[in-house]
Amino acid sequence: MVSVIPSPELIASFVDIVGAGNALTGAENTAPYILESRGLYRGTTPLVLKPGSVGEVSRIMRLATETRTAIVPQGGNTGHVAGGVPREGKADIVLSLERLNRIRDIDPVGNVVVADAGCILADIQRAADAIDRLFPLSLGSEGSAQIGGNLSTNAGGTAVLAYGNIRQLCLGLEVVLPTGEIWNGLRRLKKDNTGYDLRDLFIGAEGTLGVITGAVLKLFPKPRGHQVAFAGLASVEDALTLFDRASDLCGPALTGFELMPRLGIEFTTRHIPGVRDPMDTVHKWYALIDISTSDSPESAERMVQSLLQAGITDGLIENAVLAQSEAKSKALWHMRESMSPAQKPEGGSIKHDVSVPVSSIPAFMAEADAAVLKAMPGARICAFGHMGDGNIHYNISQPTGADTRAFLDRWREMNAIVHAIVLKHEGSISAEHGIGQLKRDELAAIRAPIEIDLMRRVKHAFDPAGIMNPEKLLRPD
Amino acid sequence: MVSVIPSPELIASFVDIVGAGNALTGAENTAPYILESRGLYRGTTPLVLKPGSVGEVSRIMRLATETRTAIVPQGGNTGHVAGGVPREGKADIVLSLERLNRIRDIDPVGNVVVADAGCILADIQRAADAIDRLFPLSLGSEGSAQIGGNLSTNAGGTAVLAYGNIRQLCLGLEVVLPTGEIWNGLRRLKKDNTGYDLRDLFIGAEGTLGVITGAVLKLFPKPRGHQVAFAGLASVEDALTLFDRASDLCGPALTGFELMPRLGIEFTTRHIPGVRDPMDTVHKWYALIDISTSDSPESAERMVQSLLQAGITDGLIENAVLAQSEAKSKALWHMRESMSPAQKPEGGSIKHDVSVPVSSIPAFMAEADAAVLKAMPGARICAFGHMGDGNIHYNISQPTGADTRAFLDRWREMNAIVHAIVLKHEGSISAEHGIGQLKRDELAAIRAPIEIDLMRRVKHAFDPAGIMNPEKLLRPD
Repeated sequence: MVSVIPSPELIASFVDIVGAGNALTGAENTAPYILESRGLYRGTTPLVLKPGSVGEVSRIMRLATETRTAIVPQGGNTGHVAGGVPREGKADIVLSLERLNRIRDIDPVGNVVVADAGCILADIQRAADAIDRLFPLSLGSEGSAQIGGNLSTNAGGTAVLAYGNIRQLCLGLEVVLPTGEIWNGLRRLKKDNTGYDLRDLFIGAEGTLGVITGAVLKLFPKPRGHQVAFAGLASVEDALTLFDRASDLCGPALTGFELMPRLGIEFTTRHIPGVRDPMDTVHKWYALIDISTSDSPESAERMVQSLLQAGITDGLIENAVLAQSEAKSKALWHMRESMSPAQKPEGGSIKHDVSVPVSSIPAFMAEADAAVLKAMPGARICAFGHMGDGNIHYNISQPTGADTRAFLDRWREMNAIVHAIVLKHEGSISAEHGIGQLKRDELAAIRAPIEIDLMRRVKHAFDPAGIMNPEKLLRPD
Repeated sequence: MVSVIPSPELIASFVDIVGAGNALTGAENTAPYILESRGLYRGTTPLVLKPGSVGEVSRIMRLATETRTAIVPQGGNTGHVAGGVPREGKADIVLSLERLNRIRDIDPVGNVVVADAGCILADIQRAADAIDRLFPLSLGSEGSAQIGGNLSTNAGGTAVLAYGNIRQLCLGLEVVLPTGEIWNGLRRLKKDNTGYDLRDLFIGAEGTLGVITGAVLKLFPKPRGHQVAFAGLASVEDALTLFDRASDLCGPALTGFELMPRLGIEFTTRHIPGVRDPMDTVHKWYALIDISTSDSPESAERMVQSLLQAGITDGLIENAVLAQSEAKSKALWHMRESMSPAQKPEGGSIKHDVSVPVSSIPAFMAEADAAVLKAMPGARICAFGHMGDGNIHYNISQPTGADTRAFLDRWREMNAIVHAIVLKHEGSISAEHGIGQLKRDELAAIRAPIEIDLMRRVKHAFDPAGIMNPEKLLRPD
């Protein structure tokens, strides 16, 4: 692996592949491509390439292999673990997929969309909507995140409960390998047991094994019934019992079960224009419950009414509101999706994207809260997320009035405290955001050596030259 | 790779690991372990080992690596591609998982079961049932197939439409590697984005990368509503339109949509005791429609009534019966599951387990029928299967009165004809049965060299000594 600046001749050769108009040099031009979305990481790069075809991606990779040049594939640069930005102090070339943004095919009979990797997620959602289909992947950054990045990080989001992560939504992939060879795995089959599962190896590999350039994604019929309810609860335990009840009653019609603390309601109503507390009562915890049924609006109504009735009868729900229109449903979801931006005006926020078995959420939360507050009295814990998936964004806002820099300097310390409790519950230190640079060393520290060794063997097998997004996910040898 | 007979000393060392009572030698004792389920392949082995613990599996593999001894992991030996039987004329040792048959844990709150690889599928279904949960994997051989074999072949079956293949039902794995090292990936998490997807690499690898010894599997709430309908149809096109209608109306409540030809009804009613034609009218095609709802029996009734009404109104359904009890539902499914055994008394049967995009099924069937009948006038085509998954078991029974041996000698020829049409429709030559020995050379012939090369790299990375179920799935170098 090189870490020297590529020669002007080599830079020129790379630029030639895409044309001067699609190559960026100089600090000002490359600035948006080197900064990780939360500002925790700032890399360096001599060159950003914006290929306009899979063939150009292939030629870039071939030249990179020949010259041992490190390449960092980048989508919408919305990731939270610095997996898609170049390393600091190295000379990684950024390969931006942004110009590969064509929907190649969309088929309402076969229920698939075939998309370039650079397509914006929201554009794919819209294309599906236009043919009366649903592409269920949905997340806060969908207006700028690219589907190739979603695939490379196995994106989750708000519809995982019913539809799974993007891994479950992808039928086939096209990948340019480090050598420039193209693997055409763009299959549209629901069932295909023909050898090793290469597709799922590239999904979630964070661009360290190859460059995803295209994908076949599943579409679904649009639900006919949709109901969103918002319930005030006394405890996380009650939230878990209510979730169990909802799963049992609604089955796959339960399309969302999101948990929020009172503090989240305060943050969002305080800082996000248009967000109002939907209730005139105050509760410790809240659940946003989303129900979608295929057959009729009435079936969703029946279901949500049964669930709320059961929750109230059993003393699980203190108060509840039912969205009376799609606009009101959207407003409730908007409040949930505003949880992240609403933390910013409150000062520094130390983040955790963790998962535990769903049944362990109450114990995890209680233990983590106690440990965090012991280490940092006054810390404002804003833990929310996809309860039905066991995935909590356990975020800690700085104590009121504290120094932000000094607070953020304790990031790793607080991570260690929270992650130790996650591991005690056999959880994951990265439920949906991935590893990147942020959690790489921690992953190596917590996993059995044989597991890291198996991953290394995969890396070497696919990228023997070590040019593919180096030092992300795995430490170099 | 060795192909010589292991020395008596080496055999004794292997036997010592499991104890003499758990090791089989001699043609008579090893006979059940060397014959592929359809009798197409008969291997040879000097020794069958039945370890009683994961530790014993580990010691077997370590000794195998040290002595370069080929090991063939075997589950219930119900596979159809000779992936789990030893090679002919070699000295592969069979490692049977049958004694590793303990359910380690079953948790109705976390909705998981943790099972040894040798657990019989039906036993896992029963254990789930006993705690009021559903383990949805279901297939004809469930009474003897082991869950480790199901995982190693990414088994499909009759509930794939709603629940997916076993890949979608597995949260975590325990695998003994060729060196004897144990990878403990027994996680119970719904979301975990921490590195390469090793789990999905072992699933479907047909025992060529390691020995699956345990798994964490998802459980589901039992549906409250269940309806099974049987519809007589005029054509495959009508079946497709009806399937589209059913998907749209029922969404994930559509748990089965199986297609059967008239010939299948004739075979099953003729040969399978207790199977009767559920209708007094005769139709070219039949669909078995299975609907399961979580909330109430009434919702399933409403759904199936709406669907049948729509199908009749639109002229898609010629006649239909609705099972009036669970016993009648079971009888309809029994007819469907008897399709395979019912072909045996009709003489030789040349099998294909193929998939195409669902929307291509009518065209595929028409083209395949024409090509098969042209090559073999009088051939009796009995194509049936999981229409909703695009997965057709395209089987050909010998012409009435033909010589069975001469007919079966044309197996490869007929495969080539059918598979050419599958490939024209961008389908798969193995939808759910895998590759094994039966389709290994064909896979290599139809796939791009880069894809086979990537698979080879995975194989070398995980099994550098080449002792792990050699010559299955991939040709040796």
